[in-house]
Amino acid sequence: MLTTNPFEDDKLREECGVFGVSNSPSAAALVALGLHALQHRGQEAAGITSFDGAQFHTHRAMGHVAGNFDRDDVIRALPGTVAAGHVRYSTTGETALRNVQPLYAELATGGFAIAHNGNISNAMKLRRELVRRGSIFQSTSDTETIIHLVATSNYRTLLDRFIDALKQIEGAYSLVVMTPEGMIACRDPLGIRPLVMGRLDDAVIFASETVALDVCGATFERAVEPGELVIVQGSEIRSIKPFQQVHARPCIFEWVYFSRPDSIVDDHSVYSVRKEIGAQLAAEAPVEADLVIPVPDSGVPAAIGYAQASGIPFELGIIRSHYVGRTFIQPGDKVRHLGVKLKHNANRALIEGKRIVLIDDSIVRGTTSLKIVQMMRDAGAAEIHMRIASPPTRHSCFYGVDTPERAKLLAAKLDLGGMTDFIHADSLAFVSIDGLYKALGEAKRADVRPNYCDACFTGDYPTTLTDQDDSVEVDQFALLAERVN
Amino acid sequence: MLTTNPFEDDKLREECGVFGVSNSPSAAALVALGLHALQHRGQEAAGITSFDGAQFHTHRAMGHVAGNFDRDDVIRALPGTVAAGHVRYSTTGETALRNVQPLYAELATGGFAIAHNGNISNAMKLRRELVRRGSIFQSTSDTETIIHLVATSNYRTLLDRFIDALKQIEGAYSLVVMTPEGMIACRDPLGIRPLVMGRLDDAVIFASETVALDVCGATFERAVEPGELVIVQGSEIRSIKPFQQVHARPCIFEWVYFSRPDSIVDDHSVYSVRKEIGAQLAAEAPVEADLVIPVPDSGVPAAIGYAQASGIPFELGIIRSHYVGRTFIQPGDKVRHLGVKLKHNANRALIEGKRIVLIDDSIVRGTTSLKIVQMMRDAGAAEIHMRIASPPTRHSCFYGVDTPERAKLLAAKLDLGGMTDFIHADSLAFVSIDGLYKALGEAKRADVRPNYCDACFTGDYPTTLTDQDDSVEVDQFALLAERVN
Amino acid sequence: MLTTNPFEDDKLREECGVFGVSNSPSAAALVALGLHALQHRGQEAAGITSFDGAQFHTHRAMGHVAGNFDRDDVIRALPGTVAAGHVRYSTTGETALRNVQPLYAELATGGFAIAHNGNISNAMKLRRELVRRGSIFQSTSDTETIIHLVATSNYRTLLDRFIDALKQIEGAYSLVVMTPEGMIACRDPLGIRPLVMGRLDDAVIFASETVALDVCGATFERAVEPGELVIVQGSEIRSIKPFQQVHARPCIFEWVYFSRPDSIVDDHSVYSVRKEIGAQLAAEAPVEADLVIPVPDSGVPAAIGYAQASGIPFELGIIRSHYVGRTFIQPGDKVRHLGVKLKHNANRALIEGKRIVLIDDSIVRGTTSLKIVQMMRDAGAAEIHMRIASPPTRHSCFYGVDTPERAKLLAAKLDLGGMTDFIHADSLAFVSIDGLYKALGEAKRADVRPNYCDACFTGDYPTTLTDQDDSVEVDQFALLAERVN
Amino acid sequence: MLTTNPFEDDKLREECGVFGVSNSPSAAALVALGLHALQHRGQEAAGITSFDGAQFHTHRAMGHVAGNFDRDDVIRALPGTVAAGHVRYSTTGETALRNVQPLYAELATGGFAIAHNGNISNAMKLRRELVRRGSIFQSTSDTETIIHLVATSNYRTLLDRFIDALKQIEGAYSLVVMTPEGMIACRDPLGIRPLVMGRLDDAVIFASETVALDVCGATFERAVEPGELVIVQGSEIRSIKPFQQVHARPCIFEWVYFSRPDSIVDDHSVYSVRKEIGAQLAAEAPVEADLVIPVPDSGVPAAIGYAQASGIPFELGIIRSHYVGRTFIQPGDKVRHLGVKLKHNANRALIEGKRIVLIDDSIVRGTTSLKIVQMMRDAGAAEIHMRIASPPTRHSCFYGVDTPERAKLLAAKLDLGGMTDFIHADSLAFVSIDGLYKALGEAKRADVRPNYCDACFTGDYPTTLTDQDDSVEVDQFALLAERVN
Repeated sequence: MLTTNPFEDDKLREECGVFGVSNSPSAAALVALGLHALQHRGQEAAGITSFDGAQFHTHRAMGHVAGNFDRDDVIRALPGTVAAGHVRYSTTGETALRNVQPLYAELATGGFAIAHNGNISNAMKLRRELVRRGSIFQSTSDTETIIHLVATSNYRTLLDRFIDALKQIEGAYSLVVMTPEGMIACRDPLGIRPLVMGRLDDAVIFASETVALDVCGATFERAVEPGELVIVQGSEIRSIKPFQQVHARPCIFEWVYFSRPDSIVDDHSVYSVRKEIGAQLAAEAPVEADLVIPVPDSGVPAAIGYAQASGIPFELGIIRSHYVGRTFIQPGDKVRHLGVKLKHNANRALIEGKRIVLIDDSIVRGTTSLKIVQMMRDAGAAEIHMRIASPPTRHSCFYGVDTPERAKLLAAKLDLGGMTDFIHADSLAFVSIDGLYKALGEAKRADVRPNYCDACFTGDYPTTLTDQDDSVEVDQFALLAERVN
Repeated sequence: MLTTNPFEDDKLREECGVFGVSNSPSAAALVALGLHALQHRGQEAAGITSFDGAQFHTHRAMGHVAGNFDRDDVIRALPGTVAAGHVRYSTTGETALRNVQPLYAELATGGFAIAHNGNISNAMKLRRELVRRGSIFQSTSDTETIIHLVATSNYRTLLDRFIDALKQIEGAYSLVVMTPEGMIACRDPLGIRPLVMGRLDDAVIFASETVALDVCGATFERAVEPGELVIVQGSEIRSIKPFQQVHARPCIFEWVYFSRPDSIVDDHSVYSVRKEIGAQLAAEAPVEADLVIPVPDSGVPAAIGYAQASGIPFELGIIRSHYVGRTFIQPGDKVRHLGVKLKHNANRALIEGKRIVLIDDSIVRGTTSLKIVQMMRDAGAAEIHMRIASPPTRHSCFYGVDTPERAKLLAAKLDLGGMTDFIHADSLAFVSIDGLYKALGEAKRADVRPNYCDACFTGDYPTTLTDQDDSVEVDQFALLAERVN
Repeated sequence: MLTTNPFEDDKLREECGVFGVSNSPSAAALVALGLHALQHRGQEAAGITSFDGAQFHTHRAMGHVAGNFDRDDVIRALPGTVAAGHVRYSTTGETALRNVQPLYAELATGGFAIAHNGNISNAMKLRRELVRRGSIFQSTSDTETIIHLVATSNYRTLLDRFIDALKQIEGAYSLVVMTPEGMIACRDPLGIRPLVMGRLDDAVIFASETVALDVCGATFERAVEPGELVIVQGSEIRSIKPFQQVHARPCIFEWVYFSRPDSIVDDHSVYSVRKEIGAQLAAEAPVEADLVIPVPDSGVPAAIGYAQASGIPFELGIIRSHYVGRTFIQPGDKVRHLGVKLKHNANRALIEGKRIVLIDDSIVRGTTSLKIVQMMRDAGAAEIHMRIASPPTRHSCFYGVDTPERAKLLAAKLDLGGMTDFIHADSLAFVSIDGLYKALGEAKRADVRPNYCDACFTGDYPTTLTDQDDSVEVDQFALLAERVN
Repeated sequence: MLTTNPFEDDKLREECGVFGVSNSPSAAALVALGLHALQHRGQEAAGITSFDGAQFHTHRAMGHVAGNFDRDDVIRALPGTVAAGHVRYSTTGETALRNVQPLYAELATGGFAIAHNGNISNAMKLRRELVRRGSIFQSTSDTETIIHLVATSNYRTLLDRFIDALKQIEGAYSLVVMTPEGMIACRDPLGIRPLVMGRLDDAVIFASETVALDVCGATFERAVEPGELVIVQGSEIRSIKPFQQVHARPCIFEWVYFSRPDSIVDDHSVYSVRKEIGAQLAAEAPVEADLVIPVPDSGVPAAIGYAQASGIPFELGIIRSHYVGRTFIQPGDKVRHLGVKLKHNANRALIEGKRIVLIDDSIVRGTTSLKIVQMMRDAGAAEIHMRIASPPTRHSCFYGVDTPERAKLLAAKLDLGGMTDFIHADSLAFVSIDGLYKALGEAKRADVRPNYCDACFTGDYPTTLTDQDDSVEVDQFALLAERVN
């Protein structure tokens, strides 16, 4: 797998990014650029579907956007002025090409393509019912459930069928849909996953993050609102809100780690929020030290914030292999026992004899923190104070984020003292949940009606979790699934 | 494309071969062997599905069986004692992997895999109805229609649903089906396409031709009968005939060209029938000549028959590149004008100054015959008498054979004189339709109830051709299909 | 490995084919066509070098000509009006690309490319001396020795240096050489390996066999004579014979097996010679039988000759998989014990109960003959009489043919009775050495000065075998060779 | 090409890295690790040679170490306790595998493998002489010249021949050589390119940079000295200095850009030197501003130094695509006109309305600086002050660094005012040459006998440049070179 974040093994991972373009003569090329900018949201596979007025065209590939979608022949084979694309991680072992989105189906109303960021929390239950009535699924993706609900809906128009389908699903979904009539972008009523809208000349663009607009030279117009459907047909744009209004709760982890620092998510600069979390940490958990050192790259903005607030100098104490694009797999068991430092290395000349504050964005299993602390210790650090720019991660996410099962979350197993011991730090502190909300400009978390989904920290899930409760039945169902080699 | 028959460009092509094994510890490996022996029935793609008692496993690949299914890792990834496979040509430009069989679906009754040789002549009509009711097709294959009919059937058991589905389809089908309960092999009521049954120790085997049994070391037991379903569940074998009995009409072209000469099709040795057609030709169309020369390789048995019956010596006057497995694509336009002889070459030393009888199995467009006659002429032949071991091919096939549209069939456009002129031969003769039936042991063709499907020669189609009559509507339907690049 | 001859495992194998073109605007494309026609002489790797008047261009590839040299981009990257190519088997395990010919070097006289069919029997000895004087070898090929002899020669002109080099080498060599001044084709003084010259418009062509001229549409002009150098510079062609004249002895096995049946080698049609050997066999070793069956494909011409001479009908009793271009590797040990018939199959309906004469071109180890006899026996043959269209192969070849070591040659270990028992035939006969010479139009073999190299049958080697005598030392030398993975 | 530095198109590029291991049971695996850590010194190709006591084994590959040398099968095919490796850029278009090092030859003294960092400035002249005497070159690499000088030396022992060869060459070379007797590491008399020695248990390791020791867990022992040969034979280590002693002048650009910040080069921490250059810049070229922004990633240490010295806050104003390992090639001309920001993006929320100091390590052609300034301007920067952490690059390098021809160097064409205008900055300043020497702990540059090679800044080349003066003749010689496609 292609990766460049040295410590990403112990991160939560966003599972998808979506991007759609209407009314551009370079639709597919723009989607390729946009997906490239969203690569951090899904590095396992990518796909683009275009519509040329008569026919839909799709190209899917395992691996990165670069190398697969930057070839002229691929883009030429995706003609038309409308196109949508998707990057993904897989949640399960199923990495087959048929799971790569956009998914496509020929319905009685014509062709239908869909790209989805999020996770439907009652997908398995709906699937069982659909199969009982004769629907045949071609993927193991929860997204396909939406298509079958549209295909078997008793409403007449595509739009009515689509709304009928959405009303039956629970969970998180930012969607870009293509039909022969036009493009529909929508965000679930809670607005859990992000989705923004931009313009480039006559073109209308939808994207998971503003950075994807930036790389195309497009201007950011506004976020798609929770519960909103934006319908683009030729030059006409309509907005409808067919759902009962609920209090929105976007995912707070987008600011902590998922989104790129140069993105603006729901009116907040990600970089600024991260620096502010660092400043909160400095206020909540001060320490006497010589250097502030970020765990690269995601810890850098919070470390700058911490350094500026505390007056302790910011320094690069860990160097990552900037020039190395591919993960190196250690060959042979013989060298496994060596203290191999493949993706990062301590800047020993700097660290030796110093008291250091180490800043990271989060701790998931704790395995990486343990290694980094040890690396700093080996390089001669006198004291190591770990500061984490998010509260303890204690609960799994069921809204489109790859989380380990709860039993593997360090903060679900140990208290602060236990965690400090586990990672062998001299001290450890997390920003408080209220500190996190402060960095977003609020006084504190509103416990009754909080403004963000923070279930991974608090366990306060904003939807029912139907499939989780049915999970035994789910496994039996999966028993007969085909494995395509 | 991998091919080895030098003159195959102008042949009718069988579109599929099927092979299934129950009760063998080496099920998938046997299927790979069997498909390899059936490679001539479909060289574009191949697939194998196995069932390990809990899960179905599938591997599909474009290209030949060898190179794709002779790797240990592939076979190991297809565990279980039951397996079925398929080789195919495509009828349309759609060469996507998702069209490669066995097709698989998870139904309410469990997993369902199907491999199909033949063509359903009302598939498009059924598909439109199914899509209107909410079914979503994942391939452009007519075979998928069967699966959706099973999935949406109102019957309860899988067997009843399957029979319900078969009763709605028209056309030609030899099928091998896998379900968690066992394997079902069946042949359409007319028995258009062949299907045989064999044994190897405890294993039960189904195959399109006996040669596939031979390569496995299996013994031939019997042909599956027209309209028969053979159901294998563990060691139990049942036979049922759920259809109204009709007069069977197997495809006569299997003896003319499709099947391998070492196969036995419905009790007739293919090699012997071909030699006998050659003998009939010698009787019906004698000529004074020095040499009998086969167009390799398919003309060889008939040429031996002609030579033995006429007393004119059999000689290899055309040498094909035996050692060349891959088609060579002529590089560069510059050499296109040369009289390039890539796959075959005249044995000039033999031919010069001789009167030759040239034997081929059939003429489709006539383009290849024209080239061969010219090649013989260039090599110095004094007279060239072309003799064809089948009647003139005047009609398209809609039962699973790749035929050009009627307007391109030489015999549909020209009479015998016109054809002789077209290919520049000194004389041309085809075996008569009665001569062909004689080679199969009959006195003559029974015009009321003929014993074979000979529609390509006579236009006497044994079924209705629903989709052909609806073809305008069909094209409109196809308009929105997705192209996967 | 790509192969199509079902029984080739037990054949002697020609190790190379060469092809060169001067004065053609399509030089490289013609070489590609020519090499494709010579593919049977070397299926492991191929290479083409062109010269555009300023620079040499080379493309080498493992595998067949088709698939590697039939791509427009490859041919376009080989510009110029002069080009030469090579197909090869490897004699050792060294299959590295750097051994693939044409070999190229920049000499003080300019670029120098060479393609070689044959084997230099004192190459190792010369190599040791050259290394001692400071030459650095880049391949393990004997051909490179020639280049270093040219590079270090004390003569001044390239032609003088080249002749100086040739005078130092022993063994078999048909060479095509390219220099900035022109092309040189030459054949060793004994003419062991074949080489012919042809014309196509203004172009001069050299090829190992006439069949390569045929595929290009070129006309055959004459064989290059033993000991002759033909020098082509622009439109000028010169012939020189710098060696002391010796009695020529071309390899007789070219007619037995190596050359294609449609080639003319040194004025004899290969097909006619093979048929005549079959007729000799019928005269020398008659038998009462029902059918004459060739071992396909190389046994076919001799079988036709035997059948015509004996009056016993020629029939296809063994069917090979015509449509199968790639060798199928049996997957998994589990099916190895089955009587698997992958590349060929008995035509059981024909053979059952019959007395058969089985015709093959040669027996090397005998392993294949054993299997074929067994296959005929299993198919119900009443009697099996094996007839071989060459004398017993009792000696290794050191002139560019891949022979097993002597101890593995069946005829070196057993007498006729022993061999008959070993292959389980009812009778076995080889054509006599005199019979073989008769088929070539001679009264008998002239024991003092035979007209062909027949060392594999007689042990009468026409050159000294320097490296064979030095073989212990050779192995030590090889010890430090680099293995490139 | 795989790259991750967003602005690397306008950098000087180190052309090679070398790494060697003696006396380790995991020799090849350690070399793979070491080369991975040196990947920034050469990303085009890599190779490893091992010696198992009897035979040399080599694997070469185009592309990165990861993906090519982290596979168990590759490492297993490189057995032995001694191994050496190489990473490279190409200086010319010649990217053929045969140029990938280590180069290998079989000499009269046995096998000889060599890996070279640097460039021999009289290689072409020596090559011409060698070819005239009969040597045949297999690569276009200057390194091969050394091998032929060894092969044709009149001395007897390998060591004497090697020293004889080195005495004939001019230029820069850090070499790791393998022979059956042991390993030799050496550095040219001026010590232009770096080379260090380390230990890991019983193993002796040589590497271009200390970071390669770090990743293996090895300890740094000392730098190999200019003009020194270190010879490792089993457990014995010898050091000899066969050259006349000269004043050493290591390349100063190693601290400016080439070496990784976590390496120690000749006793100076690269990170500390870069920070110190930043501090010098702040002193030499102060400016009133709101933010200090590094051009990522190479500008970061100098920016931290500048920020700390000036008191202006350090901020990430340019975000690179951390998660993107592969260069994205813009598909289609249609989107080329867009202001596409593929590898980096302005952090607009931070920059808008601010006065910024932009820190980069060097300016070569100036094209990238122009784009970055424009990007900052587009993001709303009020003032842009560019500060460069090296003196103006005015001269080409001929010692193993890829520099554009002089006419393309911005500082060779324009004065400071011209350059400021060209990049559209509000101000521009370079650190002075004395400032650079100060950052390395010296009072100033000693003009008579400077302690570093700074020819790219000063034009003061420490060796003769034989081939540069002969360049017309060189080109003619190259005319006949073979191109391998």
